[in-house]
Order: sequence, then structure tokens, then C-alpha cells
Amino acid sequence: MEATLAELCQVLEQHGMKPALQGDPSRCIRRVATLEDAAEGDVAFLSNPKYEKMLQATRATAVVLRPGVEAPPHVDLIRVDDPYAAITAFIVKLHGYRQHRRVPPDRMRTSIHETAQIGENATIHPGVAIDEHAVIGRDAIVYPGCYIGPRCRLGDNVLLYPNVVLYDDTIVGQRVTIHANTTIGEDGLGYAPVGGQWIKIPQIGHVEIEDDVEIGANCTIDRATLGRTRIGRGSKFSNLIAIGHGTQIGEHCLLVAQVGVAGSVTVGHHVTMAGQSGVVGHIRIGDHATIGAKAGVTNNVPEHETVLGAPAIPIRDMRRQIAHVAHLPELSQRIKTLEKEVAELRRQLAERAVEPR
Amino acid sequence: MEATLAELCQVLEQHGMKPALQGDPSRCIRRVATLEDAAEGDVAFLSNPKYEKMLQATRATAVVLRPGVEAPPHVDLIRVDDPYAAITAFIVKLHGYRQHRRVPPDRMRTSIHETAQIGENATIHPGVAIDEHAVIGRDAIVYPGCYIGPRCRLGDNVLLYPNVVLYDDTIVGQRVTIHANTTIGEDGLGYAPVGGQWIKIPQIGHVEIEDDVEIGANCTIDRATLGRTRIGRGSKFSNLIAIGHGTQIGEHCLLVAQVGVAGSVTVGHHVTMAGQSGVVGHIRIGDHATIGAKAGVTNNVPEHETVLGAPAIPIRDMRRQIAHVAHLPELSQRIKTLEKEVAELRRQLAERAVEPR
Amino acid sequence: MEATLAELCQVLEQHGMKPALQGDPSRCIRRVATLEDAAEGDVAFLSNPKYEKMLQATRATAVVLRPGVEAPPHVDLIRVDDPYAAITAFIVKLHGYRQHRRVPPDRMRTSIHETAQIGENATIHPGVAIDEHAVIGRDAIVYPGCYIGPRCRLGDNVLLYPNVVLYDDTIVGQRVTIHANTTIGEDGLGYAPVGGQWIKIPQIGHVEIEDDVEIGANCTIDRATLGRTRIGRGSKFSNLIAIGHGTQIGEHCLLVAQVGVAGSVTVGHHVTMAGQSGVVGHIRIGDHATIGAKAGVTNNVPEHETVLGAPAIPIRDMRRQIAHVAHLPELSQRIKTLEKEVAELRRQLAERAVEPR
Repeated sequence: MEATLAELCQVLEQHGMKPALQGDPSRCIRRVATLEDAAEGDVAFLSNPKYEKMLQATRATAVVLRPGVEAPPHVDLIRVDDPYAAITAFIVKLHGYRQHRRVPPDRMRTSIHETAQIGENATIHPGVAIDEHAVIGRDAIVYPGCYIGPRCRLGDNVLLYPNVVLYDDTIVGQRVTIHANTTIGEDGLGYAPVGGQWIKIPQIGHVEIEDDVEIGANCTIDRATLGRTRIGRGSKFSNLIAIGHGTQIGEHCLLVAQVGVAGSVTVGHHVTMAGQSGVVGHIRIGDHATIGAKAGVTNNVPEHETVLGAPAIPIRDMRRQIAHVAHLPELSQRIKTLEKEVAELRRQLAERAVEPR
Repeated sequence: MEATLAELCQVLEQHGMKPALQGDPSRCIRRVATLEDAAEGDVAFLSNPKYEKMLQATRATAVVLRPGVEAPPHVDLIRVDDPYAAITAFIVKLHGYRQHRRVPPDRMRTSIHETAQIGENATIHPGVAIDEHAVIGRDAIVYPGCYIGPRCRLGDNVLLYPNVVLYDDTIVGQRVTIHANTTIGEDGLGYAPVGGQWIKIPQIGHVEIEDDVEIGANCTIDRATLGRTRIGRGSKFSNLIAIGHGTQIGEHCLLVAQVGVAGSVTVGHHVTMAGQSGVVGHIRIGDHATIGAKAGVTNNVPEHETVLGAPAIPIRDMRRQIAHVAHLPELSQRIKTLEKEVAELRRQLAERAVEPR
Repeated sequence: MEATLAELCQVLEQHGMKPALQGDPSRCIRRVATLEDAAEGDVAFLSNPKYEKMLQATRATAVVLRPGVEAPPHVDLIRVDDPYAAITAFIVKLHGYRQHRRVPPDRMRTSIHETAQIGENATIHPGVAIDEHAVIGRDAIVYPGCYIGPRCRLGDNVLLYPNVVLYDDTIVGQRVTIHANTTIGEDGLGYAPVGGQWIKIPQIGHVEIEDDVEIGANCTIDRATLGRTRIGRGSKFSNLIAIGHGTQIGEHCLLVAQVGVAGSVTVGHHVTMAGQSGVVGHIRIGDHATIGAKAGVTNNVPEHETVLGAPAIPIRDMRRQIAHVAHLPELSQRIKTLEKEVAELRRQLAERAVEPR
């Protein structure tokens, strides 16, 4: 799809932005690209000041940038307060979301149990297995190699990429997307030690994923031992994330790649967990908290707090600690100097003591 | 299944526990639940004192708890020394382990090589591929999308969840469970540097998984370059765990999610490795050792030792270090004070020196 | 295949090595094994001096080792400067790389879209799905359960192990190997925050994997939001690695298990990243740099630098810091001593001041 600069500005206005166009409103734009890759007919954007020097050399037809940033005369400009939000709207307008091929019912070579129910207009690709009493909503798309276990209930417009595995009794809300090779509802590490061996505790809970969640590729979300593991509405996960049994993730959280949350953790809403961070079991992370990259959280985190380090502490304290540790060689030197000076003072004082008056 | 409180107490006695029942022995219990979720007909449990306050509000019919813990009059009580072990026995009694649907032979739409051997009463779900000369034991269950490579040998009662991949020559013992999307026997990172490029070393070893092991979802266990990578009898793995080539994991170990063990490591028996911990190659972890969460182990760990930190050191030393680092700002302040005081002493002494006598 | 010691020495000479044989050139060798596992007819090797004591007890017929290392008389010896390179050549000679079973075209039960093109002599195993307009080169091998999305382009001699998923538009070069359950081209964590919710940004870029790359099992490589995520020629990945959207990995890099690289990172060539290390977004890692195990890289890393720690700093500085932190208890004690001494000096000086002259 293509659009003129005038039409693109209208799109921004519809999103509540106030674009200022410097250039030809009838100019035609066909594609969104980076400053570096852009060619004739493309719109690019500048959000991070680090990349300002790329403006001079860009071959983009138009660039989205903040008011006040200097720009060369050879490109048309759309100035907005939030170039990143603007470019997002342009990608939706010009490129749209991924379109999924529909498979006609007579060509679906799948293994669907006779007690399973498939909603209207759903596409079940070849090589999908759907087990007893599973229910799948309208307009769902299930890619090859997925397995949907007994009694799973999936809402409308669910999208499962290839090889997603949902264990028995998993509940998935409306408009949920799960990426390839992710496993939902496997048994957690639930064993009782008996005579030096580990005896398996049946894991009779389940997983519930609420509406509008997106889960990345190769993640694992344990079913609860009892009750449920819950991923709250609108939360988004990257890849290779592990969620332990019985953990509750709130609404609109953002979990970056390789995050691990142990069992029985309660995470509030709008929490951000950066890459490779981890949380021990049975604690509580407050709403709007931020867990820094690689942090190891061992205690409750209050609302709106940002923590860092392992064990994690408030980020201002961790930054101070890091600075102090970096100065340790110097500190050590100062102590050595002090020791010499004190020894010298002691010597002088001792000398004085024996001086004849 | 349901049971009376008297029958449940009998179950505990069969496991060597000594339950004391306070309540009506004929009361009927149908389900195990958490204190929070429990309803009429449910048995709940209190093990962690943190949750004691939930006792007052629970709607459970009965609660398992330790002798001496105060409880409200509205619930029947089963008092035992280890409530967690008791509730495990109740889950087995009332709910049992997951039942797997059997597929009648004439409905198995699989791709089994003609030289493969499938044991009596095994269920091979649709969409499974079993390669040349693979052997699968009696009563095995292999879910859709699994791949069992050439010459693999699987014991009786093996359970493979969907999309498990076993590379060629993998040996799997009796009663082993492997969860979805796990890969066993892939080539490890074995390359020789030749003229600035990495030349692949054929990985001609294999993986051997002993009896009663359970491996979580989305794990990867490298085959050995030569010889074998071994997972010892009764060990249990959580999810997203990486085991390097030629590593030996002993018996009855417990590995939590996202643990990584490099190649040629020897891990003893009854070792616990907490979440996101890692071990470098070519070292030895002693029996009954514990590796703390996020620890980075770079040296041998003696038997029964607990280590923490990166690089990992004994936990008591690491705790002392953490405390000392936390006091660094104060330490730095004390040094500043000392420097002022020493300067002042020096000044006074110098003054004295020139004082007329 | 088997070979005499004389023939094995010829192999080494063909690779530019200068082997010195001590023993019977006509001795027949059938297998490569470790010193520990070796039996009659096997060649073993000693590279790491740590394992020298195993030489005495080995039952190998021949051992490869460095000049000058003492050895028992009962084994034949091949002495070379680089025993590891020599044994690699022997594994290739005696065992070779994995051979893949070919499936005759009339037995391929796959789901290949009519617009897809499959190269000459390619083996597509049962249960593979190949989507619209995908192109696969000559001699490719695609194992069961793989999914190749719309418009993917795969070169000649590509090898995909079971359940690999390639999203739409992924480009894969010649002689690329991808291990089981790996996902390439999934959407990255690209959302714009709008009114407290996360709005998905269409991810319209793709992934490009250059010639001779090998990717381990259960990895995830995000497609770019715009443009491409690139894995450079000859780079080798272990398992459970996450690469963020738009990141560029250079040529001949080595990434160990569980490494995570965030989005928009530029990694040079011949970079090594050790296990569980992580890199934040939008930075640059220079050529030949080494990232230590578990390091958390938050700033650009110059060429040839080795960094360690989180936040990562040059390894010599990190080692010094670790040593200083380990000495903190002693440092603290020295400050306490200084404080006492200074107090004593002050007391003495004060006493002196009031002394009668």
C-alpha cells in the first residue's frame, strides 16, 4: 500500500498526534525503512540523537523527527513529538500486520479428535494435532506441528505459530499470539524427596493466558501444581522465558528474552523485566516495577521501584556500590598511605617523648 | 476419586507418617486445593508459616498442618510433621498422575521406518517419525511431532511429550519422561580453528539418559564428541536447561530452569543447581553440593558445599562479601574522616615542633 | 572405516602438520576414543596436561600428544604440536560426518505448497510443511516437523534438523546447518506504549543467515523490525541463544549456550561470547573481542578486548576488582586498627598539650 505525505499526516492526527509537515504534501510514500537503508519513496525516522549524523546521507524521501532537530534540505520532514509512535502508525498503514494463508477445509490434513470443537473460519494447518474435548474459537490460525492437548479452551482470533505445544486444560483468551516452539502447561519441577529419591507430585493445576497476550518463541510456562499459572491481559513476552508453577503475571507486563521467574511469584501490572533477569520463588513484584537486565531478585520489590544486581537492590544503591567497588584500588592505596602516616606520627611522638626538656 | 478423612489418614500411615486427625473421620474429601482457592469438599495445606493468616479465611473442609500451629474451629485438621509430603500423597490418591489417551493401532498415522521396533502396547501418536533401527520399549507413549533418530534405544514406559527430538543413537532408560520441544543429542559446539575459520569436528558420541529421569520442556543436551553425555538415574530437570558435550550428571540431581552446564563437567549425585546458574567446562561438582541461583561456577566444588556468586565461592564467604560491599559507602566515609584527623595531628605536631620551649 | 598409523600420519601431513610417529606404522586403528574409554584398536589423545595421569592406564593402541610429554611404553605415539587439531582430522577420517538417510520422492508425505520450489536431490522428510513461494536449494535435507514459511530462500546443502521453524522471508545461505527446535525469524519484542497498553508494531524485516553458519538447538533469532537481522558467514552458535531484532553478528563468531544479544547490536567478526553472557541493545562489539561467561555488556567493546562481569569491564580490571572485594574484610579490619591508633595518638597529643613545661 502507498500513501501521500498528506495522508500520512492525517493518520497521525487520527492517533492524536500533531504533525508539522515541511515538504510536498502530494509526495508519494511506499515503504518504511531505516535512515541507512532508505531509498526513493521511503519514509525513515530519527528518534535516537545518536543517529543524527545519518540524516545527511539518507536517501529517504521523507523523515519523521522531533521539532527543532536540524535536517538537510534534500528530504521532506514530518515533525512530531514522538517519532517512534509516528513510524509505528506508518508501518501499520503502509505494510500492515502479517497476513496468514487460509487452508481450505478439504485440504487440512490434521489429526483432530472427534470430540474437539473448531470455531467458524479457523485455519488448522496440516500436521496439527488437537486432542479430546479441546475447543478452539472463531478465526483462529494454528500453524503446522502444533499440539493442543485435551480440554484446552482457546478464544477467538488466537494465533499459534508452528510447533507450539499446549498441555491439557490450558486456557487461552481472545487475540492471543504464541510464537513457534513454545511450550505451555508442562509440569513444573514438583517433586517430594523420599528416601534420597525425588517422587513426582502430580501437577493438577493448569495455565491461563488472558486476552491480548503475546508470547515469544521457545518459552516455557509451567502449569500450577494446584490452581493456575496466570499471564495477565495484554502482557508481552520475548523468547526463551521460563515461568514457574503457580506464578501470577499481571496485566501489560513486558518480559525481555531469557527472563526466568520461579514458582508462586506474584507480579503486578505494568512490570518490566529486562533480559536474563531472574526472580526467586514466593515473592511479590509491585505494579510498575522495573527489574534490570541480569538482576537476581530475592526479595519483594515495591511498586514503581527499579532494581538491579544480584542480589537485586534499588538501582541508585547498586550504581553507588558499583562506583565504590570501582574505586577500591584507590581506597586501598589511601589506607596504605594512612598507615604510613600514622606510623610516622607515632614515631615522631615517641621521639618527642624521650627528648630532653 | 474421593476419600474420607479416615482413609486419607490411612494413606499417610502407609507412607510411614503419623497423622493426628482433629475432626470427623467420615468427612468426604474430593479435591486438593490451595488455602486460597479451596471450597467445600477440599483439603488444603499449610506448610510455609508465611501463609498462616490464610487459615482463618479458608473455605477448605480440611487442612493439613504441623502439630502446634493454631487453627480456627471451622475446619477439620490433619496434623503431621511434613504437611508437604502428606499433601503430595493426597494428590496422588485423589487426582493421580496424568492419564494418556491410547491410540488404536489402525489410527496411528505415523512415519515409522520398517527397521524400527515398537514395544508391546506402546502408543505412537500421529505425526511421529521414528527412524531406522530405533527400538522403543513396552507401554511407551510418544506424542505428536516427536522425532526418534536412527538407532535410538528407549526403555519401557518412556513418555515423550509433543515435539521432543532425539538425535541418532540416544539411549533412554526405563520410566523416563521428556517434556515438549526438548532436544537430546544435538551436536555440541565442537569446532577446530583452522586459518581463521571454524572446522566442524564430527560429534560421534551419544547421550545416555538413565532410568527414572525427567527432563523439562525446551532443554538441550549435547551428544558427546567421543563417548557419552550421561544424565544419572532419578535426576530431574526443569526447563530451558543446556548440558554441554561429554558432561556427566550424577544420580538424583535437581536442576532448576535455565541452568547451563558446559562440556566435560562431572557432577556428583544429589546435587542441586538453582535457576540460571552456570558451570564452566572440565570441572567437578561434588556429591550433595548446592549451586545457588545465578552462580557462575569456575572451580571444583567439594562435596556438601553450597556456593554462590560469579565467580562462585562458598555461600558464607559470599554473604560476608555482599555485606562488606553494602558498607563500602560508610567505609569510604571513615577513611575520609581518618585522613582529616591524621592531617590535623600532623599539623598539631608540626606546630609543637616550632613552639618555643 | 579403518586406517594404519602410517595412513593417519599422512592425513596429518595433508593438513600441514608434522607428525612424529613412535611405534608400528602398520598398526591398524578403527576408532577415536577418550583416554579413559579407549580399547584395543583405538586412538586417543592428550591435550590438556590435567589428564596426563590417565596415560598410564589407557588401553588405547595409539595416543596423540605433544612432543616432550612423557608416555608409557605400552602405547604407540603420534607426536604433534596441536593434538586437538590432529584428533579432529582423525575423527573425520575414521568416522566422518553424520550420514543422512535419503527418502525416495514417492515416500515423502509432506505438505509442500504448489508454488514452492525444491532443488534437485533434496530430501524432504515426512511431516515437513513448506509454504508459498519458498525456494530450497540442491541437496538440502529437511527433517520431520520443520516448517519453512512463505518466500523463504534456502541455499544448497542446507541441513535442517527436526522441528526447525523458519518464519516468512528468511534467507539461508549455502551449507547452513540448523539444529532441532530452533526458531528463526519470529517477531521481536516490538511494541509501542499507547495509553497504558502495548500496541504491536508489525515486524516487516527478515533474517538472513550467511553461508557455512551452524545454529544450535532451541535458539531464537528475531526478524528485524525493518531491514534485516544478519548472522555472518561461518559463525557457529550453541543452544538456547537469543538474538534480538535488527542485530548484526559478524563472520566466524562463536556463541556459547544461553547467550543473549538484544536488538540493534553490531558484533564484529571473530568475536567469542561465552556461556550465559548478555549484551544490551544498540551497542557495538569490536572484531576479535571476547565476552566472558555471564558477562553483562552495557557499553561498546573495542577490538581484541576481553571483558568480564556485569556491568562488563576489561578482564584485568575485573580480576583486580574481584581480588579487592575478596580482601574487603581485611581492609575493614585495617581501618578499624587505624581508627584506634589515631584515637590513641590524639589522646597522647592532648595529654602532652596539658603537660607542664
